[in-house]
Amino acid sequence: MDQNKLKQLVGREAVKYVEDGMTIGLGSGTTVKYMVDTLGEKNKKEHLNLMCVTTSKKTAKQATNLGLTVKELDQVDEINLTIDGADEVDHDFNGIKGGGAALLWEKIVAKNSNRNIWIVDENKMVNHLGKFPLPVEVIPFGSKHLFRELQKMSLNPRFRTNVASALVKTDSGNYIIDLNIGNITDPIKLAEDLKGLTGVVEHGLFIHIVDEVIVGTNDGVRIVNKK
Amino acid sequence: MDQNKLKQLVGREAVKYVEDGMTIGLGSGTTVKYMVDTLGEKNKKEHLNLMCVTTSKKTAKQATNLGLTVKELDQVDEINLTIDGADEVDHDFNGIKGGGAALLWEKIVAKNSNRNIWIVDENKMVNHLGKFPLPVEVIPFGSKHLFRELQKMSLNPRFRTNVASALVKTDSGNYIIDLNIGNITDPIKLAEDLKGLTGVVEHGLFIHIVDEVIVGTNDGVRIVNKK
Repeated sequence: MDQNKLKQLVGREAVKYVEDGMTIGLGSGTTVKYMVDTLGEKNKKEHLNLMCVTTSKKTAKQATNLGLTVKELDQVDEINLTIDGADEVDHDFNGIKGGGAALLWEKIVAKNSNRNIWIVDENKMVNHLGKFPLPVEVIPFGSKHLFRELQKMSLNPRFRTNVASALVKTDSGNYIIDLNIGNITDPIKLAEDLKGLTGVVEHGLFIHIVDEVIVGTNDGVRIVNKK
Repeated sequence: MDQNKLKQLVGREAVKYVEDGMTIGLGSGTTVKYMVDTLGEKNKKEHLNLMCVTTSKKTAKQATNLGLTVKELDQVDEINLTIDGADEVDHDFNGIKGGGAALLWEKIVAKNSNRNIWIVDENKMVNHLGKFPLPVEVIPFGSKHLFRELQKMSLNPRFRTNVASALVKTDSGNYIIDLNIGNITDPIKLAEDLKGLTGVVEHGLFIHIVDEVIVGTNDGVRIVNKK
């Protein structure tokens, strides 16, 4: 099955978890994009009463265009369920997110959700995190010095740039530094070390956050629950 | 001696540490304001070759107006000496900063300085930190939820507002939540806990940062070195 078919498949499966009256957190990225399309259809067809909180300006725009009700996170009391993608997931249900530069808002929404489901295709399931570059969101002020500190920590940092070679700015106005680590032996320790650095706003390690992963495989959908 | 006299006194003392050719970090706040005035005079009189890095847009403006050369932190390789104020300093040389809402840039500059001197008047020297509200700089997105989390941690949070009752925005575009704790029994633990929260960019606990404190007293200046 091609990648896009797999993405549609897991998106459709995830939307089955959405019930009338829920407040839903919507992630970001290409897999989520298909899911939001399906959610928009379901919402229209079944005349649901949903509220959505989004993790990026891009998803907010898509959801609004589909006729979904989008609220700011601070306008809702709680989020019943958040559906998001991930760039890597290991056997301990820890993950790397932030390939789309939305990791900060994604983590804030996830932490405020009663339940988190990730939708991924099979090749995102890994034995060890770190092959995918780990994104770190940093305050622009003094970020070159922070970059050097990350170099000294042997984390192979690289500022993320866009097609025009300009530094990527997040929805919160910060920069992204990607760490090419290869193999993260202790994600929990690394998460603490990174967040402890002055100038680091957040990083893409999502530790103990996801409850359920919906995996798209060539044989169909596989649902993996937290042990 | 009145407060302003004391502030001038410690500022003049601090400026004695500035040598020709140095890159100097300039803090923020009223005590620092007097010091920067004195530094501007010294710079002119002695025809010094100084570079300054500032911790707020306000101090940058003041220094530029005085004819001092102001560079961005990322334009300099290292800072030889930073002179800043503090809201509280305890016997372990830990402090609370951020009364002026510049704590993030202040901490970034301080961490990139070879030496840090604080200038304070006597009543800032305390046995235990926490009588002064501890400022926390937070990402606006989802900050009401973070506020509730801080409430659950019994940290008595309060959003900082300006005279027009609008939320104060920092130079990095974030909000400030002040924690009215009263007595911080374990500043190191609290610092870790706060920085670990998703949405917290930085907090005003400055742990193991300052090297020397210049204290203004009614009997003159007292210089306290780290044990």
